[in-house]
Amino acid sequence: MTNQEGRLVTFEGGESVGKSTQAALLAAQREALLTFEPGDTELGGELRRLLLSPEFRITWRSEALLMAADRAQHVEEVIRPALLEGTDVVCDRYAESFLAYQGFGRELDLDFVRSLTNWATGGIRSDLVLLLDISPERARVRTTMRQKVDRFEVLGLDFHLRVREGYKALAAEDSDRWVVIDADRPPNAVSESVWRAVSERLGW
Amino acid sequence: MTNQEGRLVTFEGGESVGKSTQAALLAAQREALLTFEPGDTELGGELRRLLLSPEFRITWRSEALLMAADRAQHVEEVIRPALLEGTDVVCDRYAESFLAYQGFGRELDLDFVRSLTNWATGGIRSDLVLLLDISPERARVRTTMRQKVDRFEVLGLDFHLRVREGYKALAAEDSDRWVVIDADRPPNAVSESVWRAVSERLGW
Repeated sequence: MTNQEGRLVTFEGGESVGKSTQAALLAAQREALLTFEPGDTELGGELRRLLLSPEFRITWRSEALLMAADRAQHVEEVIRPALLEGTDVVCDRYAESFLAYQGFGRELDLDFVRSLTNWATGGIRSDLVLLLDISPERARVRTTMRQKVDRFEVLGLDFHLRVREGYKALAAEDSDRWVVIDADRPPNAVSESVWRAVSERLGW
Repeated sequence: MTNQEGRLVTFEGGESVGKSTQAALLAAQREALLTFEPGDTELGGELRRLLLSPEFRITWRSEALLMAADRAQHVEEVIRPALLEGTDVVCDRYAESFLAYQGFGRELDLDFVRSLTNWATGGIRSDLVLLLDISPERARVRTTMRQKVDRFEVLGLDFHLRVREGYKALAAEDSDRWVVIDADRPPNAVSESVWRAVSERLGW
């Protein structure tokens, strides 16, 4: 654990697995600050618009650096101040998304991606990472039920399979900090698992 | 020298030293591609707007990462394709600006700043770096004659002194690739020095 006053709990997983729903439920129950990446600062809003538009031309390296810039701003402006004043923070995607999407999904150099994310976060780590796991095939069914798709959702199934395997590898190597939750169930069953996890791991 | 087909010549220096004028003159004489950082791509235009607005809240880490994202896009979309097809490229600011401004000026960890810029450029280095050198006090006189000032121009003199010392240190440790030119002279005297440098160093 870090010497933060508040606790940082982050939701991770692929597209359309229910992260934002579960993050909102947990934050409401805990009276925690609910936030998300990319985008939850003034700068981040601008970057999110650039990052998620499939029409906009962005190289893989540039994408990774914009994600890191969004995270650096988010940590300094939102997450760190909240933790320091003793507020718990629930975040929909954080540093581990970066490792899974840029490191495993985009297959960028994982050591560099790690050093980039460590530098961007200034050392603020999640106290607990909740991985909402679902097969990309099942997630795709959910995604296609929505109107708009973003830059990542349009990528092929092999990309999303690498992201999922990446998440699982990260969870396996740091199991004290991660809990893997089967997200291919109704929302209330998933939130029961979430509640059990934060209770066991953080005493919430 | 790298195994590029075209040559990359970059202009460096503080604010209001005449880089864009000299870059334009050299590019015209050489029939080279004239470009600049930050901003000379569609993505870069958006990032430049964010980066240079003094009103917009951006942390130092985030600023560095946005600069790197701009550079990564610029290299992939503009510089590398031009060099590969045998076109010489003249760029107003490049990787060395990053080391001088973020490493020395902002005093971020220089090793990390170096690894970040190496990664962003994908190994494309300037064949020749022309440093237009002028004291920050003199440059400030020029800046205040203009209408608008940007995020860097509003910083204190000590910042700009660190940037200048940083540039000089970089030039001293890699003198084969750098030429320092006294820019506190009329533009035609400066461009004569530029022309002599590219003739001696690159056979132009």
